[in-house]
Amino acid sequence: MNTLMSDIKITRTKTTKIHDVDFDNLNFGRTFSDHMLVCDYKDGKWQSPEIVPYQPIVLDPSAKIFHYGQSVFEGMKAYKDANDSVWLFRPLENFKRLNISSKRLAIPELPEDIFMEGLKALLKVDSNWIPKKEGSSLYIRPFIFASGNGFHASPADQYKFVIALAPSGAYFSGKVKVLIEETYSRSANGGVGFAKAGGNYAGQFYPTQLAVEKGYQQVIWTDDTNHEYIEEAGAMNIFIRINDTLITGPTSDRILDGITRKSIIDIAKREGIPVEVRKITVSEVVNAAKDGSLKEMFGAGTAAVVSPISGFGYKGIDYDLPELKDTYATFIKKYITDIQTNKSDDPFGWRVKM
Amino acid sequence: MNTLMSDIKITRTKTTKIHDVDFDNLNFGRTFSDHMLVCDYKDGKWQSPEIVPYQPIVLDPSAKIFHYGQSVFEGMKAYKDANDSVWLFRPLENFKRLNISSKRLAIPELPEDIFMEGLKALLKVDSNWIPKKEGSSLYIRPFIFASGNGFHASPADQYKFVIALAPSGAYFSGKVKVLIEETYSRSANGGVGFAKAGGNYAGQFYPTQLAVEKGYQQVIWTDDTNHEYIEEAGAMNIFIRINDTLITGPTSDRILDGITRKSIIDIAKREGIPVEVRKITVSEVVNAAKDGSLKEMFGAGTAAVVSPISGFGYKGIDYDLPELKDTYATFIKKYITDIQTNKSDDPFGWRVKM
Ligand SMILES: Cc1ncc(COP(=O)(O)O)c(C=O)c1O
Ligand SMILES: Cc1ncc(COP(=O)(O)O)c(C=O)c1O
Repeated sequence: MNTLMSDIKITRTKTTKIHDVDFDNLNFGRTFSDHMLVCDYKDGKWQSPEIVPYQPIVLDPSAKIFHYGQSVFEGMKAYKDANDSVWLFRPLENFKRLNISSKRLAIPELPEDIFMEGLKALLKVDSNWIPKKEGSSLYIRPFIFASGNGFHASPADQYKFVIALAPSGAYFSGKVKVLIEETYSRSANGGVGFAKAGGNYAGQFYPTQLAVEKGYQQVIWTDDTNHEYIEEAGAMNIFIRINDTLITGPTSDRILDGITRKSIIDIAKREGIPVEVRKITVSEVVNAAKDGSLKEMFGAGTAAVVSPISGFGYKGIDYDLPELKDTYATFIKKYITDIQTNKSDDPFGWRVKM
Repeated sequence: MNTLMSDIKITRTKTTKIHDVDFDNLNFGRTFSDHMLVCDYKDGKWQSPEIVPYQPIVLDPSAKIFHYGQSVFEGMKAYKDANDSVWLFRPLENFKRLNISSKRLAIPELPEDIFMEGLKALLKVDSNWIPKKEGSSLYIRPFIFASGNGFHASPADQYKFVIALAPSGAYFSGKVKVLIEETYSRSANGGVGFAKAGGNYAGQFYPTQLAVEKGYQQVIWTDDTNHEYIEEAGAMNIFIRINDTLITGPTSDRILDGITRKSIIDIAKREGIPVEVRKITVSEVVNAAKDGSLKEMFGAGTAAVVSPISGFGYKGIDYDLPELKDTYATFIKKYITDIQTNKSDDPFGWRVKM
């Protein structure tokens, strides 16, 4: 396993793009580094990964990714500290979740060494692409898609695993206003909602557009049976603070088991913040907003980190959240970011040096 | 609009692949014709379609199709009659459904002339690829996918519409044994199940693999709330004959509004077959199997045409269907195929000459 890293074939680009990049004004996920990792699955097994210059992917028009949405992905971040050391946050969790997603999508599971050693080698090659500026990071996008061919609704016989890197700024700018969904749904019981499957995201675009037209930035999904329970947002799990208690819904086969979410639960426990993992009904939130016990709502995810919510809409009524001085969101965001960027101790052992 | 067809730029292949194809032994969707239609959406509009040699598609690794499953497709067939005339079956219905799917997936709707005139022009260029053998046809795959770039879960700003052609034999060989699903689901209330969205198919692969391991070929999906109602199969709507009545479930936002399904309903009405469109519970089907009133089950879809089901499994028990002499399935399959291939009158005006 440890021999693999030295085995990875590396083809370096002849012309770096790095001098075109304004690292002080990075958007999110639109600038890509010089190299990428690629690894093909064929003849019944994952082949040797390679690092190559960032380059187009060439596929037959009948490649199953175009037709049947057979794809999964992950999202991670690499940070550089004051001493230029490079840090990842709980990368093994992303690896495990990738395989959980793959299994549900009938994609062959990836060996751990290809993921971990491949990622390490790629970060080494492109280490100068990792931003140091506060609030910026190198967004890491591992993904697998069906590259095998044929107009037949059945799993492909070939897949491609790729890791691409995007130096990125903040995902959201400012606070987010959300709409609690009453009509559309993100996922079914017994469906693929818990997987980071491509199709879960495309299905959210149209309802989110409708919400954006009404002046909201994001949708809070509810269960598809009665739209009674708060589930999650497009790319974030949701936390709700009622009085001094922080509440988040339990994960299920409809909800992504977010790494930020579970880290926040652990941080809250350690820091003496009362935290409950239990179902939350929409009416509980609405009532808490009405009686003033609703203090905060925030989203939590790798891309958005901790993203405070300024208010929510439900059944045509807008509810504003109070502007508190000392919020859990601010405390937790700093706490987790300090761990991620090696600015504080890491009592949980989450940070991994590359 | 009618000037468009003559406007379509056609680049012909220098080397046809047609002589390599054994038209007497075609599989389904694995052999592709010499040309394809491509049309790009960018700068806020669909550009001019072109016919080019069948060739690979080249995409940036950050193209949203790889990450967010933003894609829709259609499935149609072209038939050649004894006089070498070429026929399509209700093509406008496929065009309309493509746009219904696109809307739900936040993909810009396609103008009718690009679809219809593009298809006509392509079929003309590749008309010698349309099989004449009974049971064979030219399978037509129009599809649209997000070709715009970026690791941001939001609709792409560029799309590609492609029509590819695959001379094909039968989708299933022989009767199909199905498993009525009790655990997994295909779609959510308020979800994208009614759309021909790529992600709907990948989500079915794993549960179908589990069914195949148990000796079934296909899964019959049930509602995701209680798995109480019969919905549809992977690529077919489902008909059930109890005594002399043909029953199929109503379409909904969870079920694809199949063109074969609605054609069969019309045929049954015209031919005096009692037909009901209503919800069917799994227990009704099980009870009918037990008391002998369950006479037939079959799937209906463009690819599979009319596909008789030999039996089903439910809660660990297998139920065989009787072997009747004169089945609705046989009657309807011949009836619809004769219309499609110009072997009979077309009282409904469904057939369209190319
Ligand atoms: C649907 C969904 N929920 C939640 C999250 C947050 O998960 P994590 O904290 O692991 O990034 C993400 C993003 O990764 C997501 O896509
Ligand atoms: C999920 C699903 N249901 C039903 C059908 C049948 O629809 P149609 O008869 O229009 O081909 C298809 C195939 O097109 C399908 O993919």
